Amino acid sequence: MPHPDHPASPQTQPNEWLTDSNGELALSIRFKGDRLFQEQSLYQTVEVFDTHSCGKMLTIDSMVMCTEWDEAAYHEMITHVPMLTHPGIKDVLVIGAGDGGTIRELMRHSSVEKVVMVEIDEAVVRASKLFLPTISSAFDDPKLTLLIDDGIKFVSDAADASYDLVIIDSSDPVGPSEGLFTKSFYKDVHRILRPGGVITVQSESPSFNPKAFTELNPCLKSVFGEDQVHCYLVFIPTYPTGLWSLTYCSKDGPHPLKQFDAAKSSAFAKEHGLRYYNEDVHTAAFSLPTYIRNMINQ
Amino acid sequence: MPHPDHPASPQTQPNEWLTDSNGELALSIRFKGDRLFQEQSLYQTVEVFDTHSCGKMLTIDSMVMCTEWDEAAYHEMITHVPMLTHPGIKDVLVIGAGDGGTIRELMRHSSVEKVVMVEIDEAVVRASKLFLPTISSAFDDPKLTLLIDDGIKFVSDAADASYDLVIIDSSDPVGPSEGLFTKSFYKDVHRILRPGGVITVQSESPSFNPKAFTELNPCLKSVFGEDQVHCYLVFIPTYPTGLWSLTYCSKDGPHPLKQFDAAKSSAFAKEHGLRYYNEDVHTAAFSLPTYIRNMINQ
Repeated sequence: MPHPDHPASPQTQPNEWLTDSNGELALSIRFKGDRLFQEQSLYQTVEVFDTHSCGKMLTIDSMVMCTEWDEAAYHEMITHVPMLTHPGIKDVLVIGAGDGGTIRELMRHSSVEKVVMVEIDEAVVRASKLFLPTISSAFDDPKLTLLIDDGIKFVSDAADASYDLVIIDSSDPVGPSEGLFTKSFYKDVHRILRPGGVITVQSESPSFNPKAFTELNPCLKSVFGEDQVHCYLVFIPTYPTGLWSLTYCSKDGPHPLKQFDAAKSSAFAKEHGLRYYNEDVHTAAFSLPTYIRNMINQ
Repeated sequence: MPHPDHPASPQTQPNEWLTDSNGELALSIRFKGDRLFQEQSLYQTVEVFDTHSCGKMLTIDSMVMCTEWDEAAYHEMITHVPMLTHPGIKDVLVIGAGDGGTIRELMRHSSVEKVVMVEIDEAVVRASKLFLPTISSAFDDPKLTLLIDDGIKFVSDAADASYDLVIIDSSDPVGPSEGLFTKSFYKDVHRILRPGGVITVQSESPSFNPKAFTELNPCLKSVFGEDQVHCYLVFIPTYPTGLWSLTYCSKDGPHPLKQFDAAKSSAFAKEHGLRYYNEDVHTAAFSLPTYIRNMINQ
C-alpha cells in the first residue's frame, strides 16, 4: 500500500476519481475509464461508474448512492431492522430507493403482501436496471407497485392508517430530497401509518452532515414522541467518513431492542445469506458513541 | 452543502487538501494554509496540519494518525476496553502511540502504577508536544517512562511475565511498523505478559487495508489461541472509509464481554467525561457485520 507524497493520486489523475465532498472532507473512489451511464435528468445528474475496488457505483450529483461492494450494509439495515422488530408488516411504502436495493431486501420477507415504491426520478431506476442487476433484481416482483412520482405529494394524498412500514430511503437534503427532511412530511407519514406501525429513515451522517443529522432527530421526536425515536449506526465505507445513521420510529409500536427476537433474526439472516445484518449487529447498531448521543440527546 | 460537479475541490485546490489513499480509495481533509510542522525524520515524514473542520491533524507519510476532533474514538477504545475488562492492571507497555493520546487515557486509571512507552520516532512525540497539547497532555506524568527506541527490539529483550497490559498502537504495516505485524513479535509480546494479561492491537481496516486485517487475525490466534482473540470495531471518520478495527487478546485472561462490569464502566466514562467510549459501545463494538466475521472466521 504505497502512499505517494502530496499531491496524491486524486490530484494527479483527476478524471479517474469520483469525489464526494462537503467542502471540508472528501472521499474519492477510483474508477475505470469512461462513465457507464451519465444523464442530466429533470432533477439531478445520475451516473454509474465501474470502480477499481468497489464494483459498479451509482452516484447522484457526485454523491455516492451505492456500490456493489458495500450496498448490503445500507439496504439490509434500513429494511431488516424494522422487518425483524415488527412481526406483522404486510403493507409497505418506500419513498426514494430508486436503485432497488431496499425492494430486494423487503421481498425476502414472505409476510409482506404489498409494496408501493415512489421514486421521483425514473433515470435512477433505469440506470440501476441497466448496470446494477444484483441491486435492481426485484423490480419485477408482482407484489411491487412502482410509481415515478413525488413522494411528498404521494404521502400527502395517501389515506390514513394504510401502511405498516414506511421506509424513507432518500438522498441527501439538497435538491429533490430536501422536502423529505421536514416536519410537515413526517406528520403525513405518521398519519398514514397504522397504529403500531413503524418507519426507518436515512438520517444522514453525524460526521459528514452534522447539521442535517442533528436537525432531523428533534423533528422526528416532535412528530412520533421522544421515546419512539431510535437512532442507529451503520458502517458504510463508500460514504464519506464511513459513519452513517438510520433512524427507527414507531407509532406507539414495538421497541427495536425490547421487542426483538434474536433467534428469529439469526435464522433469517442465515437463511438469506445476508452480508451485513445479523442478530448481534441489530442490537449493537443502537449503541451510540457518547458524542453522538450528545448531538441528539439520546 | 453544495456538491460541485467533477472535478471536485480536491482536484482544483491541490495544495489545500491532505489525501490519505490506498490507490483505490482516498480520504481528503482540507487544511488552512501552510503545514504547522513538516520533518523528514530517520523513518518517515511527520506533519501537522490545521484543518478546517477537524482541528489539528498529525500525519505520517500522508497517512492520518489523528485529528483533535475525533482522536478520542481511537484512544479511548484501544485503552478503556482492556482497562475496564481486566481489573488488576498495574504495569503497562505501550508500543508506538507517539502522539500521546493512549498515555493520556491510561493515566485516567488510578490502578496503573507504571507505564513504559516505546516510540521509535522522537519527531512524532515532538510534533505532538508542540502542536497537539490536548493529546500530548500526559507526557510529564511521573508514572511514565518514555523510551525513543525500537519496540520490536525492546519486546525481544524484555523479561518474561513483566506486564499486565501491552498496547500496540502502531501506524500501518509499511515502513517502521511492518515488524509489528509478525508472529515472532507477538510471541515475544505473549511471553512478556503476566498470566491473565491482555493486549490491544491496532488491527487495520477491513475495508481500507483488507489484506493486513485478514492476515493479522490468524497470526494473533496462532500465538494467543483461537478463543482468546476478539476483534472489535470503531468509527473513525478521519481514517479512510471510517471503519477501523482493534483486537483484544488475552493470555488466558478475562473475556471482554463475559467478564465485563457495565456499571463500573458507565461510572468511569461519566466521571472522566469520555467522548466516545461508554458501557454500551464497549459491548457493541465486538458485534461484527457478517462479512467482517467471515473475513476472520469469528
